[in-house]
Amino acid sequence: MSPLRVHYLLRLEPGETPERRALDLAREQSVEIVEGAAPAAAEARSVGRVAALAPAADGRFRATIDFPEALVGGELPQLVNVLWGNVSLQRGVRLDRIEWPPALLARFGGPTHGVAGLRALCGISARRPLAATALKPVGLSAAELARRAAECARGGIDLVKDDHGVADQAWAPFRERVLRVAEAVGEANAATGGATLYAPNLTGPADRMEERLAVLAEAGVRAALVAPLLVGLDTVRALAARSGLLLVAHPTFALSPAAGDGGLAPEVLFGDLFRLAGADVVVFPNAGGRFPFTYGECRAIETRLGAAMGRLAPAALMLGGGVDRARLEEWIPRYGPDLVWLVGGSLYARDDVETAARELAACVRRVAPGEPEHEIGGVRAAT
Amino acid sequence: MSPLRVHYLLRLEPGETPERRALDLAREQSVEIVEGAAPAAAEARSVGRVAALAPAADGRFRATIDFPEALVGGELPQLVNVLWGNVSLQRGVRLDRIEWPPALLARFGGPTHGVAGLRALCGISARRPLAATALKPVGLSAAELARRAAECARGGIDLVKDDHGVADQAWAPFRERVLRVAEAVGEANAATGGATLYAPNLTGPADRMEERLAVLAEAGVRAALVAPLLVGLDTVRALAARSGLLLVAHPTFALSPAAGDGGLAPEVLFGDLFRLAGADVVVFPNAGGRFPFTYGECRAIETRLGAAMGRLAPAALMLGGGVDRARLEEWIPRYGPDLVWLVGGSLYARDDVETAARELAACVRRVAPGEPEHEIGGVRAAT
Repeated sequence: MSPLRVHYLLRLEPGETPERRALDLAREQSVEIVEGAAPAAAEARSVGRVAALAPAADGRFRATIDFPEALVGGELPQLVNVLWGNVSLQRGVRLDRIEWPPALLARFGGPTHGVAGLRALCGISARRPLAATALKPVGLSAAELARRAAECARGGIDLVKDDHGVADQAWAPFRERVLRVAEAVGEANAATGGATLYAPNLTGPADRMEERLAVLAEAGVRAALVAPLLVGLDTVRALAARSGLLLVAHPTFALSPAAGDGGLAPEVLFGDLFRLAGADVVVFPNAGGRFPFTYGECRAIETRLGAAMGRLAPAALMLGGGVDRARLEEWIPRYGPDLVWLVGGSLYARDDVETAARELAACVRRVAPGEPEHEIGGVRAAT
Repeated sequence: MSPLRVHYLLRLEPGETPERRALDLAREQSVEIVEGAAPAAAEARSVGRVAALAPAADGRFRATIDFPEALVGGELPQLVNVLWGNVSLQRGVRLDRIEWPPALLARFGGPTHGVAGLRALCGISARRPLAATALKPVGLSAAELARRAAECARGGIDLVKDDHGVADQAWAPFRERVLRVAEAVGEANAATGGATLYAPNLTGPADRMEERLAVLAEAGVRAALVAPLLVGLDTVRALAARSGLLLVAHPTFALSPAAGDGGLAPEVLFGDLFRLAGADVVVFPNAGGRFPFTYGECRAIETRLGAAMGRLAPAALMLGGGVDRARLEEWIPRYGPDLVWLVGGSLYARDDVETAARELAACVRRVAPGEPEHEIGGVRAAT
């Protein structure tokens, strides 16, 4: 069986050798015990091995570690332990790239709907970018949120999601909000012949998940917003496996991606891992907005969500975080045709939300997207 | 109702003013919309406000933000969104400290057993540190793990936990492992009159949690290891609320704490938040081992786990990550009497594990712990 091959970048401390550091990493993430203290049979089937070690251009070292697939045992939490468990507590190490063994990927269902399912649910036949908005701000009543949602739906926005901070506040309790917004979007769709998709924020208490899924079913909702790092990546996998919902994954509580050259590479966390867990759409802040990520980092996530990955369906990237409607024409051609453009604040800054929504909807239909190369056979396209 | 008061440290980018940055942070974590775009009523009940702003000694600025308690709505995932949601994706910001409103704390049960319950389950009447070990390495069969567990129990180790990477591998499937180890520990306890506590690794697929809880019940197990950042903090809360298990929380997939002066302060994540979620014991790597944390950081976590925090029971800190049996005498007096000392590798490096375990057990009984000051009334003790 082919191993799980993981590429880490190591920044050495004074006095460290790359060989020692790579070996320590391989053991930390597998047997987690010093050499010589484990029986030979246990080592043979469990220990990570340094497959390659080479200087990187920036003074770091690239350590390629092979982990036995059997070490993972087919479960997502343990897979994450192997990839980014204890090492997440260390400095000067970055998980840069994963080479997925087909047999391991085959254990995971990935996105249930994927990009094709997203288009189908939104009634889109052309291969064009999508327009989305977030229902905000928190503080609005359920009726006010429903009114905004209806305006956006009438304006032709493809996907309307709750803001991630819209939870179960007293002024807009979960059940009332979901029922009212879903009804308002449904009425707008009926009036326009459109198919705006509503994704309420499902993230909430673990022991109320069933109750909330029942509310979504009652409301006839087909999509939901979840925060994988709050509810656990494997909770997303379980939801994808059985809920039938299209899952929009929010990056809140991300913790590491802005950690300089350390941490988990954003495209590994929000690309590979979110997709593996079953996210159909992944929300991320675009370059040039309120967040520090570069265009290259955003493109790398887009690439990983769309690249060949066993039989996993491609997922869509939703870029937001301060995407200004006024600059959208410049951004669209720089990404591919599966992008979901999330415009929130600048939509609501206008008095007439419906007209603002209509302009946004027209923009994604009018401006031609780019045709970025996608990763082929494990080789990353230039970004 | 008193607000949720959160202290952030901000490192400004060139051209930023502290006032603007603090205001942006307060809005990002609450209404997430530019000024003027939200109806006044929504702003009034939801927006975070800058309560204080002052230069810190190291060139950063301390921004104290008050969030309305109603913004949280009483749910842990949304609480985390408010504290460390979108801002987790930004640079140059650290969540340094939280002032908890009593009414908010009252919504959470916290540790079910706490330090007192841990002592009771381990049959310890004296206020002394505890000795723990991790069953490792992954790769051992269930029978081999059970033999090691029995040796440790006969040697008088207080708590034996699975290594966090011991999951459901083919060579030691979950059910077989838990039943065998529990039986072996039970027999050892019966033989010695001891009360070694076994905490199997419960972290696993979200949709198999019930099945695994049933195995724990079948095995008569009273404790479990969980990884809050893998399963979700709120899953821990739900487990604490109803499982009856003593929960040992592992820091795997931590992502941020080594992120220089940014990120979530370790004592906030592993102290306040893990305890709030219901961890009775929190595993963390000690200073001086394989991980980069300082003595001050470890002490700060110990302090937060033991400090007054509404009616929440104190939790215990379990320090491991390369604690060498040979240096334990030096470490014990530097921490308080509730410390759980996790010695794994150096125990198993010896041929005779039972004798090594006995020496470890004797050490925590013999060496007097320190009497570190604990945080009183929100003022952190000197570390």
